Amino acid sequence: MRDIFNQELKQLGSDLETMSSQVATAIERAAESLRNGDIIVAEQVIDADERINDLQRDIDDLCVMLLARQQPVASDLRNVISALRMAQTLERQGDLARHVASIARGRYPEPPVPEPVLGLILEMADLAVKAGRDVAELVRTRDLDLAQRIQANDSGLDELHRRSFQMILDPANELSRQQVVDAVLMGRFLERFGDHSTSVARRMAYLVSGTQVPGTHDAEDADALH
Amino acid sequence: MRDIFNQELKQLGSDLETMSSQVATAIERAAESLRNGDIIVAEQVIDADERINDLQRDIDDLCVMLLARQQPVASDLRNVISALRMAQTLERQGDLARHVASIARGRYPEPPVPEPVLGLILEMADLAVKAGRDVAELVRTRDLDLAQRIQANDSGLDELHRRSFQMILDPANELSRQQVVDAVLMGRFLERFGDHSTSVARRMAYLVSGTQVPGTHDAEDADALH
Repeated sequence: MRDIFNQELKQLGSDLETMSSQVATAIERAAESLRNGDIIVAEQVIDADERINDLQRDIDDLCVMLLARQQPVASDLRNVISALRMAQTLERQGDLARHVASIARGRYPEPPVPEPVLGLILEMADLAVKAGRDVAELVRTRDLDLAQRIQANDSGLDELHRRSFQMILDPANELSRQQVVDAVLMGRFLERFGDHSTSVARRMAYLVSGTQVPGTHDAEDADALH
Repeated sequence: MRDIFNQELKQLGSDLETMSSQVATAIERAAESLRNGDIIVAEQVIDADERINDLQRDIDDLCVMLLARQQPVASDLRNVISALRMAQTLERQGDLARHVASIARGRYPEPPVPEPVLGLILEMADLAVKAGRDVAELVRTRDLDLAQRIQANDSGLDELHRRSFQMILDPANELSRQQVVDAVLMGRFLERFGDHSTSVARRMAYLVSGTQVPGTHDAEDADALH
């Protein structure tokens, strides 16, 4: 019984690794499609999201089956519940990467916004890419220092998000309405991607240390919208 | 043992009812603050979100405790897992209501957007209010027909969301950049509020019928962004 359980827990860990690395790839490619106006890459992100969604369903099913058949307690239970939640968060991150890629595709062959707003959005995209990669590494290594760094780094993305509103509202930056719409949405998607990375990092810290980290569990969505 | 379990399950149900009715109130007041430019009501929504977040934490803790101590199986397990997820979704809906209220507050005493865009946003807000009330009733009654209606009604909100982009982009509608930004964000928040209502309805249908309803479990975020 314990053998099967351990095997299933291992499967769960490996599915989560796969999922987080697919999310990292998705946001990398979404950023690339923004930077290079590459429609092929944008479409890869959009198509690949279906696989991320499938993985979430697999992880969900595995977790529910584990809870029903093995009735885990203590750290095993924490493991399963955390997996359930991290998969949900990673699935959202896949959606957000897809949304960014959709905007890039929708404006092809033009970049969605002109400079200097584009530069700022690309900076946000770079931080989101870093967050996505860090989360994939965290899921693999369960390194508590990395979990802390991910949470600390998110303030950089929040700060850029605030600046994006200033830039969008600055009449010196020539923007069509469509470009204003796109810039607002891209900023929002990238900022939320970062929030969700923080949420995975917090859950991992809880899972490894057993100690609740202050702050809400879920991807906190503070009010500094603009 | 079974007695305590039943009592705890009852507590869980009653916490979820409270939470969903608080979310319904939050979106009602957010809509009111948009309609009447009422800053007091907007601030009530913003303050009350903390209580919704607290309720989520309570429900989370109760679920994890139930899983650990009672090791439920079959329909009891489904009950607990569903509660865990619905609470997470309701918490997000509280955030979204708060965001809408923040925009109303930020533009006080002006309405955030002029007519005719305001009228469309208010139509969206009305549908979101209906969804919030329906979800609260669903959590109380577990009525499968209502669950179906909630899912069907969401297409109305999606359609209005698409129209909001057309309206925002139409040069005949005079809008400042700030108003474009606000309209995009309000549209997005309200549309997501509706998606999450659908997600609760789907989970409830699964919980009551035991049959997986087609479509993803989570608040599906389709790509018809604009």
